[in-house]
Amino acid sequence: MVVAEVSIVPIGEGPSVSKYVKKAIEVFKKYNLKVEPHAMGTVLEGDLEEILEAFKEAHREVLKDSKRVLSTLKIDERTDKENTIERKLRAIGIE
Amino acid sequence: MVVAEVSIVPIGEGPSVSKYVKKAIEVFKKYNLKVEPHAMGTVLEGDLEEILEAFKEAHREVLKDSKRVLSTLKIDERTDKENTIERKLRAIGIE
Amino acid sequence: MVVAEVSIVPIGEGPSVSKYVKKAIEVFKKYNLKVEPHAMGTVLEGDLEEILEAFKEAHREVLKDSKRVLSTLKIDERTDKENTIERKLRAIGIE
Amino acid sequence: MVVAEVSIVPIGEGPSVSKYVKKAIEVFKKYNLKVEPHAMGTVLEGDLEEILEAFKEAHREVLKDSKRVLSTLKIDERTDKENTIERKLRAIGIE
Repeated sequence: MVVAEVSIVPIGEGPSVSKYVKKAIEVFKKYNLKVEPHAMGTVLEGDLEEILEAFKEAHREVLKDSKRVLSTLKIDERTDKENTIERKLRAIGIE
Repeated sequence: MVVAEVSIVPIGEGPSVSKYVKKAIEVFKKYNLKVEPHAMGTVLEGDLEEILEAFKEAHREVLKDSKRVLSTLKIDERTDKENTIERKLRAIGIE
Repeated sequence: MVVAEVSIVPIGEGPSVSKYVKKAIEVFKKYNLKVEPHAMGTVLEGDLEEILEAFKEAHREVLKDSKRVLSTLKIDERTDKENTIERKLRAIGIE
Repeated sequence: MVVAEVSIVPIGEGPSVSKYVKKAIEVFKKYNLKVEPHAMGTVLEGDLEEILEAFKEAHREVLKDSKRVLSTLKIDERTDKENTIERKLRAIGIE
């Protein structure tokens, strides 16, 4: 299991980008992923292939309405231990 | 007001880093900031100077116990509109 | 054409990670991409699908030798103008 | 010594941002830092305090001409070994 963070930023469409962020989140929700938006991006949990597909589709979807898009994907994967959003939060004392 | 995201990663101390992340969060809480940890980093809200000080102290604190630290700070600041965690989440339909 | 930046960081294998970075760069070079490593990551230029494949393979290759890997991919794509490493550098006065 | 990477992105001023990037690079050059721009950001080398000051000034300088700015700073610091751009590049076989 992979925990990831995604941020999709249209840089040609004025300072208010929430319309695009909502569109990206709608794309993530179509996939078999846990989707947890926060104020600076969205945390995803699931299979790596699924995450890459969702990232690509969200990026392309936003690029349809914007001349330029800067998208970031951060992937955290480990093989020694179960890796989930829940376990990571528990490990730092948040339940 | 600035909304920011911080991630502090010790890369020389084995795959489990929650001990260090907890230490960084303790540092953030000493400052006059809103502190919201998630599974891939911590969202901060407050004054830019305060955020930079907190970032520097957390980075240095973790470096005391780790040979190498990779720290990331992302800053979102705007002048046209109030910029808070709450407003950003409301804009994407999360309250 | 997409300009991207990749960083692949093993976090369980001690503070020296150049062995893993070299392995990731070898993976990138197998693809039909421009590959330009710098001191904090590697800039790639090419087709989006190709970049995503290269990112996935490099991440997995490093995960074979490390218990935990943190990989970051940043994608810059625009539809209004040619987007290449060369044009981007020229635009900021570097040739 | 710290090796860092900075990216300053105005998100409210249209898709072409090179004018702002050039302004940020001019700010970095006023400081006692090695400054190496690449196609996706700028690599800096120097003292941590100096890097944080330069980052803050570049961010604020760009915010004067743009309604919203998203700035990212990544810091790589280690205590076991000399940490410079040159040594990092040499370690991955680039001179």
